[in-house]
Amino acid sequence: MNNNKIKAALLGAGTVGSGVYVLSGMLADEMVQKTGGSLEIKKVLVRDISKERDGIPREVLTDNWKEILEDPEIRIVIEVMGGIEPARTYITEAIKAGKQVVSANKDLLADYGQELLRLAEENAVDLQFEAAVAGAIPIIRPLKQNMTASLLTEIMGIVNGTTNYILTKMSEEGMDYKEALNMAAELGYAEADPTSDVEGYDAGRKMAILASLAYSSEVVFSDVYTEGITHLTADDVYYAREFGYVIKLVGIAKKDEASLEVKVHPMLIPEHHPLATVRDSFNAVFMHGDASDDAMFMGRGAGKMPTASAVMGDAVTVLRNLLHDNCGWNGGIAYKKIPVKPIEETKSRFFLRILVQEKPGALGNIATVLGKNDVSIDHVVAKHTVQGFNELVIITGSVMEGDFNHALSSLEKMPDVKQICAKIRVYSE
Amino acid sequence: MNNNKIKAALLGAGTVGSGVYVLSGMLADEMVQKTGGSLEIKKVLVRDISKERDGIPREVLTDNWKEILEDPEIRIVIEVMGGIEPARTYITEAIKAGKQVVSANKDLLADYGQELLRLAEENAVDLQFEAAVAGAIPIIRPLKQNMTASLLTEIMGIVNGTTNYILTKMSEEGMDYKEALNMAAELGYAEADPTSDVEGYDAGRKMAILASLAYSSEVVFSDVYTEGITHLTADDVYYAREFGYVIKLVGIAKKDEASLEVKVHPMLIPEHHPLATVRDSFNAVFMHGDASDDAMFMGRGAGKMPTASAVMGDAVTVLRNLLHDNCGWNGGIAYKKIPVKPIEETKSRFFLRILVQEKPGALGNIATVLGKNDVSIDHVVAKHTVQGFNELVIITGSVMEGDFNHALSSLEKMPDVKQICAKIRVYSE
Repeated sequence: MNNNKIKAALLGAGTVGSGVYVLSGMLADEMVQKTGGSLEIKKVLVRDISKERDGIPREVLTDNWKEILEDPEIRIVIEVMGGIEPARTYITEAIKAGKQVVSANKDLLADYGQELLRLAEENAVDLQFEAAVAGAIPIIRPLKQNMTASLLTEIMGIVNGTTNYILTKMSEEGMDYKEALNMAAELGYAEADPTSDVEGYDAGRKMAILASLAYSSEVVFSDVYTEGITHLTADDVYYAREFGYVIKLVGIAKKDEASLEVKVHPMLIPEHHPLATVRDSFNAVFMHGDASDDAMFMGRGAGKMPTASAVMGDAVTVLRNLLHDNCGWNGGIAYKKIPVKPIEETKSRFFLRILVQEKPGALGNIATVLGKNDVSIDHVVAKHTVQGFNELVIITGSVMEGDFNHALSSLEKMPDVKQICAKIRVYSE
Repeated sequence: MNNNKIKAALLGAGTVGSGVYVLSGMLADEMVQKTGGSLEIKKVLVRDISKERDGIPREVLTDNWKEILEDPEIRIVIEVMGGIEPARTYITEAIKAGKQVVSANKDLLADYGQELLRLAEENAVDLQFEAAVAGAIPIIRPLKQNMTASLLTEIMGIVNGTTNYILTKMSEEGMDYKEALNMAAELGYAEADPTSDVEGYDAGRKMAILASLAYSSEVVFSDVYTEGITHLTADDVYYAREFGYVIKLVGIAKKDEASLEVKVHPMLIPEHHPLATVRDSFNAVFMHGDASDDAMFMGRGAGKMPTASAVMGDAVTVLRNLLHDNCGWNGGIAYKKIPVKPIEETKSRFFLRILVQEKPGALGNIATVLGKNDVSIDHVVAKHTVQGFNELVIITGSVMEGDFNHALSSLEKMPDVKQICAKIRVYSE
């Protein structure tokens, strides 16, 4: 039975790390029953070993990576420190030393996921990273296993809880962006510097990981077009709702015959679309497959215990693989090279809010300029006058983004047009 | 490379079977890239080999099970025939012959799942059955792998598409039950004999499978309390909506310290609950775990290609396991014995619709009788008079089902009460 006691090391003892430590204790019995073995966290790597760690005994702490790397008893490395370095170096060294790896690190996996997966394959070790995208929602494993029999054509994800919380407050309580952001910060949903969340970078990294897995083609963060939510106003949210839409920050990964589209931006989603019902800080991933049809997974994308449970789910899988001598079959290696389209070559519908001179014929002039640029109009409403101006709220038909930008510069030059206040993409079937 | 060509047999060539056959051809390249091998369906077992089968060449058809069982080249058996016999015998013989098994058969797995899983473990072969519950929604594998690190406390599922379609029509278009059932039959969602769907038996079988996996304790169909939707009226749906609820046929599998509750019945779900947004013939499974918190998976629970894609996802997993000499680790064996509570010992809130004499004090009398039986009232509305009667619509507090039934018999004896028209359970936090 001694052979079935596997030792692991935890890199990082922050919020998620301490959750993982606690869960590994709580699940001890469960693990023996389900895998025939147990997992003990022998060492926890931290920067400052003098600091108290919630629920982690002092004697397991170390600030010396070599102590873990060179300990042959430690067979699983669980990385929850985040950031590119030193995580990339540690994981690389661990894999080369034949240790199994579990990581929750989206920054690292978005840019070096394929490099690390290949290295893991060469060394016949596991590299599991369910927690890196959408926390407690099982999405990595279904993409690698269940969905292999349905070629995916589109993934749409709400993969950032902070921005979804902010947008929910704006939509349901009429808050403006700043007010909702402050509230998110107070509740601990937004970090002191919220840039990575509100500019869509965090979501962009997750979409790079999902796109790589779904289409077996490497997509890195710099391939992903990102646009955040900082420019959205209470008016946009209000008018969107009038048209029957909810504004969400959506990550999209689409495939057509020859290319991929991978992007993150705010989007008007029809009220009845399953993604529109995903509220507060919840995450969700919606997929369309040619055989599986529509499917959506929803759950907690962040938070101490939800993320820790995803990490431990991976650790239990690795434990079972170790006990059954079956490590190293990770799947998810990108064997295709499909180019990612520049955003200008993608098609969208658009929601436009334009301040125009209050005079007869203004709408006609604008519609004419849009029409000349191949932009059709699906809906338009003229809104209340503000000091001699009317606000036009327009939803266009589907148009190539490059053409649309051209149309917008023509609009901006029109004497009738005072300001283009908002331009937000709109869901289309 | 020849060793990597694995042969399989398909049992059944109905709707799902022909979908599986077609997919196995379409995915040939994908499979080689993702597993290093390929899967060829060498034989298809049917009752009548003279009948034309959509997309399946005549030469692979056979009506002789022994031809498959005794063919050592056939290493995977994919069962999509449904029903207990002869499926149970065939699968048992296949497992004993060392063949890997994929099954989509909920009837069989609900009652003999544990027997077959144990047999598979003894013979070190795979038994995969993702398609048996909620079709294309990955739920079996997440329950066996991802969720192992979060102890589940509750599962709520909309796991029957036919009844969800009927209830959606009743709710959104004001149809009565018969009208909606006829519409479902016209669209092919309801079978000629819809009993198994509308009485909740189909959902009950799926909940038995989910409960067994989630709680590692064997639950069979006869343990599951089932109540169908045939008694629901357009009035019930209408009043529920007035209170802010949607009526769904819900399967519930809950665990408390010492026992399980596994049941299927109509339920009033708050409009903002994620399950309330699951429309038409979609399925969804909502789970609450102590660490993972709330999660919901939604997708196609039935249909030719969605179900076939789930079956093929399993077949690809088995193919990979065969190529890597790693079959037989199924998980999901029930190692606990947790009793299932009789329905009388479970607690619920109730929606009641009662026809009472139109006279002052009638409500007071009823509330008094309910109160004496420990039934509190959360909401009550008195509705329009019908020929000297008032209709009372009541939502109660949480009460033990046995006590509630006792209260109802007291109500029925009251001279004020003409009829108890509806009694439907209501979601509570």
